[in-house]
Amino acid sequence: MIENWENDQEKLVQWLDERQFSAIRAWLSEQNAVDVAELFEELPSTQQPTLYRLLPKALAAEAFAYMDPDTQEVLIHAFTDRELAAMLDELYLDDTADLLEEMPASVVKRLLKVSSPEDRRALNQILRYPENSAGSVLTTEFVGLKADMTVAAALRYIRVHGPNKETIYTCYVTDNDRRLQGVLTARELLLAREDDRVGDLMDTHVIAATTTEDQEQVAALFARYDLIALPVVDSENRLVGIITVDDVVDIMQQETTEDIEKMAAIIPTDKPYLRTGVWELFRNRIPWLLLLMVSATFTGMIITAFESALAVSVALTAFIPMLMGTGGNSGSQSSVTVIRSLALDDIRLDDIFRVLWKESRVALLCGAVLAVATFLKILAVDRWLLGMAVTLPEAIVVCVALFITVLIAKLVGCSLPLLAKRIGFDPAVMASPFITTIVDAISLLVYFGVASFILST
Amino acid sequence: MIENWENDQEKLVQWLDERQFSAIRAWLSEQNAVDVAELFEELPSTQQPTLYRLLPKALAAEAFAYMDPDTQEVLIHAFTDRELAAMLDELYLDDTADLLEEMPASVVKRLLKVSSPEDRRALNQILRYPENSAGSVLTTEFVGLKADMTVAAALRYIRVHGPNKETIYTCYVTDNDRRLQGVLTARELLLAREDDRVGDLMDTHVIAATTTEDQEQVAALFARYDLIALPVVDSENRLVGIITVDDVVDIMQQETTEDIEKMAAIIPTDKPYLRTGVWELFRNRIPWLLLLMVSATFTGMIITAFESALAVSVALTAFIPMLMGTGGNSGSQSSVTVIRSLALDDIRLDDIFRVLWKESRVALLCGAVLAVATFLKILAVDRWLLGMAVTLPEAIVVCVALFITVLIAKLVGCSLPLLAKRIGFDPAVMASPFITTIVDAISLLVYFGVASFILST
Repeated sequence: MIENWENDQEKLVQWLDERQFSAIRAWLSEQNAVDVAELFEELPSTQQPTLYRLLPKALAAEAFAYMDPDTQEVLIHAFTDRELAAMLDELYLDDTADLLEEMPASVVKRLLKVSSPEDRRALNQILRYPENSAGSVLTTEFVGLKADMTVAAALRYIRVHGPNKETIYTCYVTDNDRRLQGVLTARELLLAREDDRVGDLMDTHVIAATTTEDQEQVAALFARYDLIALPVVDSENRLVGIITVDDVVDIMQQETTEDIEKMAAIIPTDKPYLRTGVWELFRNRIPWLLLLMVSATFTGMIITAFESALAVSVALTAFIPMLMGTGGNSGSQSSVTVIRSLALDDIRLDDIFRVLWKESRVALLCGAVLAVATFLKILAVDRWLLGMAVTLPEAIVVCVALFITVLIAKLVGCSLPLLAKRIGFDPAVMASPFITTIVDAISLLVYFGVASFILST
Repeated sequence: MIENWENDQEKLVQWLDERQFSAIRAWLSEQNAVDVAELFEELPSTQQPTLYRLLPKALAAEAFAYMDPDTQEVLIHAFTDRELAAMLDELYLDDTADLLEEMPASVVKRLLKVSSPEDRRALNQILRYPENSAGSVLTTEFVGLKADMTVAAALRYIRVHGPNKETIYTCYVTDNDRRLQGVLTARELLLAREDDRVGDLMDTHVIAATTTEDQEQVAALFARYDLIALPVVDSENRLVGIITVDDVVDIMQQETTEDIEKMAAIIPTDKPYLRTGVWELFRNRIPWLLLLMVSATFTGMIITAFESALAVSVALTAFIPMLMGTGGNSGSQSSVTVIRSLALDDIRLDDIFRVLWKESRVALLCGAVLAVATFLKILAVDRWLLGMAVTLPEAIVVCVALFITVLIAKLVGCSLPLLAKRIGFDPAVMASPFITTIVDAISLLVYFGVASFILST
């Protein structure tokens, strides 16, 4: 499918030029909506509306939901009001809500105008929830059952109302005040006897999210309980909508990307790289670069302050990058491990002493091996092979400083993210670059401290 | 549910001590399997078998599948052969396969001995697939239909055979040679007329994986096509099994953790942090630390080689950490962005020139702002406020070197991962620490080059 992409696209462009519409229609109807959406994005915008009108109705709406906002906007501008209303009718409500969030105000106005009054009301509600909350990603198109229905009646209800619902595999049972009473899977309905009652079959221990809950927590619930859909309730336990697993897969990717960007000292964005402008990339990267530059000048000031020590032993300067680099790497190994474990809920705040104890032992091992390796390397390579002027006391200074630096770096690296979480900051922001700067400064202080202690005696 | 965790656990331990088994049984039967599994892990191993025997049969097996291997092993040792066989009978086959992979050889032997001959054959096949391949994570428990069945017959078939299947929501249609002909969702079956034929309703454009495909590619297919299940076929298109979305959520987390660990110069492991031993953590971290230490000594050698330049202008030494740090951060911002975009399929290899063009402009902006900021800071803070001995030419050297370093760092940072991917290496390994070392060396060479050019004229 994806393999002969280039060919498909070329073939299609040629067919469009030759106006071979029936061949296009036949070919398109066999494609997957995701592939069709990608194909549209590669086409010149003048050809997009023509091609769209050749798609079967259901496939067209499904493909539309997967397109990038630029392509969607081109198509909306080309649509008549009637075409637009027909397309919105086919779209799931959560996809329409996503669309409204991406479009400029004038387009939003037109979209809401052609929506049915009922959809308009639901959309306005979804759009009012805070960004990245459970409410903002839910859909109101779920199968709602009543406890006193029989299985046969429930299956009949699904046959009639199912086609417009995002999922029919989990059904939600509510009372007359829309309060959530239980859930029932299509599987249980299919395997039950026709005259069983929904109320007897349903599971009343429902895992649910509230509308204001963060989408990251929603994703964690899906991962923890292997869910395929999750009900979302308001503060009075009234069922507002559901979130389905396909949206959660996207949320998980988005949240992980955010964490990775934060660890790399970038302000997160939820746009794909190629669709992010140069200015936006610049704005996302420069603040941390400036901040880290300022903090790095402190390291410079430490070097200046100890210039006297350096003057005594110029050879020590050559080991500064190795020392700072190894310290930084040791620290970020620990911090990244802890940050990721926190994100996956593998460790919690009260595990801090277990983490510190484990990292101390790992640090002792790493520090010892690195110090010994450095000592041997100084003797064998620097002194013997390269003939550098490193004295034995200087070699000892380097190795002792290295050992202490690795130890401190690992302990700082593992405790800072936990501390950040403790005081309510995002642990990911505390990662590599920030820790590197702290560890850089510490490693220099240790280095010069050890140097003046050993070399002056 | 999760909130009063501490209380639940304490309550349960107390009940166990008081032998209030009926209270325990009543309380447990209302819990979710995932929560029960977690509860077990917190209990002393002597109490685990007692508690396990109080669980309802289906819940017991489901909870068992979620427990960590240590707890599983304790329970297996406590089971009689009959109990073990009953539990395996309830487990899904892919969970049994996971279990076999984690257990020591003697336990595996016992597990296979008590399995049914049919399960044993299927398990042996799953275990033969390479680690992390689609074959190794599939389950053979799917609903298989024939094209000539009516909808009514298919629904009858599901009612009879459904209870043992991992999912009944996607059904797979095969011919008499087990070759995959099409898929049909439970939704389509439920919404169809009773006398429709499966062959007419099924979708013949099936997205499938092959047994040897990497699980990372499987996860990408799920994310791209919003799947809830994916069929896995062998080289002759014969249906071997299926993979369900709940396993893919775990695979996605595991693969992302691997990428993050590689970026932090750690050899990846798929064990949670608290269950990884000190020796294993040490072994995963020390190789990259040693390698990066060796490469960092080259930076040291550059400093030594340019000691003459340094002697001319000691003030320049103070800016080395800032220069190397900013270069490293600029580079890893670009590399991490590109690595993540590659992983999400947002950019591809042939986008290299678009990436280079975009990064060049971002680098020019960042470089210019950082250089100007540094120049002003040297004048205002270093010279005026701190009274440091930095001459104007020296300030110009620092700023020009910074600008060039940021430019080179961003271009190296964005092109190295693409290059790695091009020659078949993992882009994540090419990330931050490795790039930092390269950029460190380059930034020093640039610095001393600029210094000798400007200061000697």
